[in-house]
Amino acid sequence: MSFREDGYAAVDWAARYLDRIGELPVLAQVKPGELSGKLPLAAPEQGEPFANVLRDLDDLIVPALTNWQHPRFFAYFAVTAAEPGILAELLAATMNQVAILWRASPASTELELRVVDWVRRLLVLPEGWHGHIEDTASTSTLAALIAARHVTGRNVVVCSEHAHSSVDKGARMLGMELRKVPVGDDLGMRTDVPLDDVAAVVATVGTTSFASVDPVRALAERARSAGAWLHVDAAYAGSAWICEEERWSQDGVELADSLVVNPHKWLMLPMDCSLLWTSRPEQFREAFSLVPEYLRTPEDAFALSEYGPALGRRFRSLKLWAVLRCFGAEGLRAIQREHIRLAKLFAGWVDENPAWELVAPQRFSLVVFRRHGTDEENEAIVERANAGGEIFLSHTKLDGRYVLRLAIGNARTTEDDVRRAWEVLNR
Amino acid sequence: MSFREDGYAAVDWAARYLDRIGELPVLAQVKPGELSGKLPLAAPEQGEPFANVLRDLDDLIVPALTNWQHPRFFAYFAVTAAEPGILAELLAATMNQVAILWRASPASTELELRVVDWVRRLLVLPEGWHGHIEDTASTSTLAALIAARHVTGRNVVVCSEHAHSSVDKGARMLGMELRKVPVGDDLGMRTDVPLDDVAAVVATVGTTSFASVDPVRALAERARSAGAWLHVDAAYAGSAWICEEERWSQDGVELADSLVVNPHKWLMLPMDCSLLWTSRPEQFREAFSLVPEYLRTPEDAFALSEYGPALGRRFRSLKLWAVLRCFGAEGLRAIQREHIRLAKLFAGWVDENPAWELVAPQRFSLVVFRRHGTDEENEAIVERANAGGEIFLSHTKLDGRYVLRLAIGNARTTEDDVRRAWEVLNR
Repeated sequence: MSFREDGYAAVDWAARYLDRIGELPVLAQVKPGELSGKLPLAAPEQGEPFANVLRDLDDLIVPALTNWQHPRFFAYFAVTAAEPGILAELLAATMNQVAILWRASPASTELELRVVDWVRRLLVLPEGWHGHIEDTASTSTLAALIAARHVTGRNVVVCSEHAHSSVDKGARMLGMELRKVPVGDDLGMRTDVPLDDVAAVVATVGTTSFASVDPVRALAERARSAGAWLHVDAAYAGSAWICEEERWSQDGVELADSLVVNPHKWLMLPMDCSLLWTSRPEQFREAFSLVPEYLRTPEDAFALSEYGPALGRRFRSLKLWAVLRCFGAEGLRAIQREHIRLAKLFAGWVDENPAWELVAPQRFSLVVFRRHGTDEENEAIVERANAGGEIFLSHTKLDGRYVLRLAIGNARTTEDDVRRAWEVLNR
Repeated sequence: MSFREDGYAAVDWAARYLDRIGELPVLAQVKPGELSGKLPLAAPEQGEPFANVLRDLDDLIVPALTNWQHPRFFAYFAVTAAEPGILAELLAATMNQVAILWRASPASTELELRVVDWVRRLLVLPEGWHGHIEDTASTSTLAALIAARHVTGRNVVVCSEHAHSSVDKGARMLGMELRKVPVGDDLGMRTDVPLDDVAAVVATVGTTSFASVDPVRALAERARSAGAWLHVDAAYAGSAWICEEERWSQDGVELADSLVVNPHKWLMLPMDCSLLWTSRPEQFREAFSLVPEYLRTPEDAFALSEYGPALGRRFRSLKLWAVLRCFGAEGLRAIQREHIRLAKLFAGWVDENPAWELVAPQRFSLVVFRRHGTDEENEAIVERANAGGEIFLSHTKLDGRYVLRLAIGNARTTEDDVRRAWEVLNR
């Protein structure tokens, strides 16, 4: 078979998968080890046709997928890998750029700078901020903490008790001390903490558990006067700043030293695409720049690898370019607004039903709620609902209580899907 | 247009690109800023057809590509993104698995463990080693240093003066002290250094500059008795252990605490795919494991995110599975052996020609050489050759002298291509 024929077959497979995605169970209906038990222990000695891989996708892989593209995926943060982004990944792999420095891929280097700046404009962030792409927010936040320690010479990280685990993990990996700050009634981080010895304050806009918003402006002002770096984690909610009516949550972000927003969360990009901006590009670069002899070139051009941990960088900007162009700002806004409308609709049903309660203010496209009753009862509801395969949602804890999360983020999700979730939970 | 039609068009574009790859200049023939000057300053407000993206690939992107898939790409480490791996990236983006924990993607979690173990068997590494996929060797080595500091409680990293810059960068990011050790006559790291306060010794098999090999066994034994962690960086050359005759360079690797090998370097995988094994999985996991409430599940299944920095993980194992199956071990060995044969052939031409000299022992598929004359003359040869677009090679320094590197690693490279490189350099 030729590459072209194998390629058409792969596209056909992908089209069929997406066409019937709503008929598949959302959560994988397999037990741990079930797929492993069907996979050979060793690679084949002789090559086989690509068609065998496609056949085994159906036979082995699909049953073990949790279908993130499913319209009734409501767990964690629901996401979408839009079609132009999927095809861009094929093209990026074809060109196989390894953008270790400008010369190694002028296209990847310059397109990345430009399309990340397109997003900066869409989000109405300050001019002059330097942005680039990392794989995930874990890496972006890790890089920000490294820059903060480099610039301040201090070793303490401060964040809300509801900050993402990547802050804990980053501080632990770097050997930095982490101080968790309690939240106020609105679930926002308290600001009355001493910052004199602090390297970095991490403020979150849209926490993973509740989509709550820290008081960024107050934290930024306090960080600045204490000589600390302010990193804003808006991995999920920052994408919503393309909509004017969600920009209330951006207040004070213009004072940040660094900011992470993940287009693979809510701008319809396939994994992985995390954007990291800094308002202090020269100092940020100092923390990472290191050009060995074998990478020196006569051009006066810089490398994006000087702004983060990895040297080898793949051509991730291509999918961002493709999705932004094929949807346009209008198209992306329309999808987000529908998600937010559906979340409000669901929150209304919860609020009106005496058996249920909202446990946190409804923000963006997330609803946090519980049924009146014990933690065990609520956990049983989630596990039973997920096991059925019709919907998939996840949970968190608030003040020690087990609570449910319904996150809307898939472009295929309709009002019917949200209604179905409500029915399943009430069954 | 439908996804299927856009997909066929993308496959056609990819097939045409690869068909004519040998006719394109290897090194991009653009100046810094040239592409940027042609890109709009902002994303479009309205969406446009995917066909526009394909059109602009030809008009804007291709001229700014350095063509890593080109048969006369001899710079850095030459690589190949093989067709089954390219198509697997399309499929992975379609399924858009975000494997933050087992439940979120049983398929990605279990396939990754199994196919990384396939590679372990092909490379004849010890049973019981735990392997997973990171994006690049920079991240793999960073993770190894984090584990080393966690386990030893010490803060010093030791490596050869010719170790990869990712070791310097990793130590710097982590705030660890780096001690560079001189090499002996064979360019291997000296072993007579004190290790009493050392967290990690990084030994390299196949350095970036010279493909030289550190004395892993001696270093491993000394590290073990000093209580230090031994990390082996075989990012490039480790792939060659699929060939029995290259396994001399593996001596002592079975004593390592961790090992990195990059299939995106010499196992025909598209960027990014770096394999990280550890012989101490429990301790390695302790350094990273952190499961917040919203990720707790009733299953007794572990998450690969507990073994490295990132929480979100894309479905990288799919391309490794596809390439290993479609080539088979035989197919991959045949390609590597041809690369090694071509490197030896080229080294022979250099050695026989009185105007040129080999400056390091020829290892694997790399040749390091120079023309008799000044550094400036050698630099001018490289820059003139690269500017012509017929070949692309890079340089390094040995004992302060400018030397040329010819790295063979593209599956399309033939004896004619290598001969052409020799002709261009002698022009």
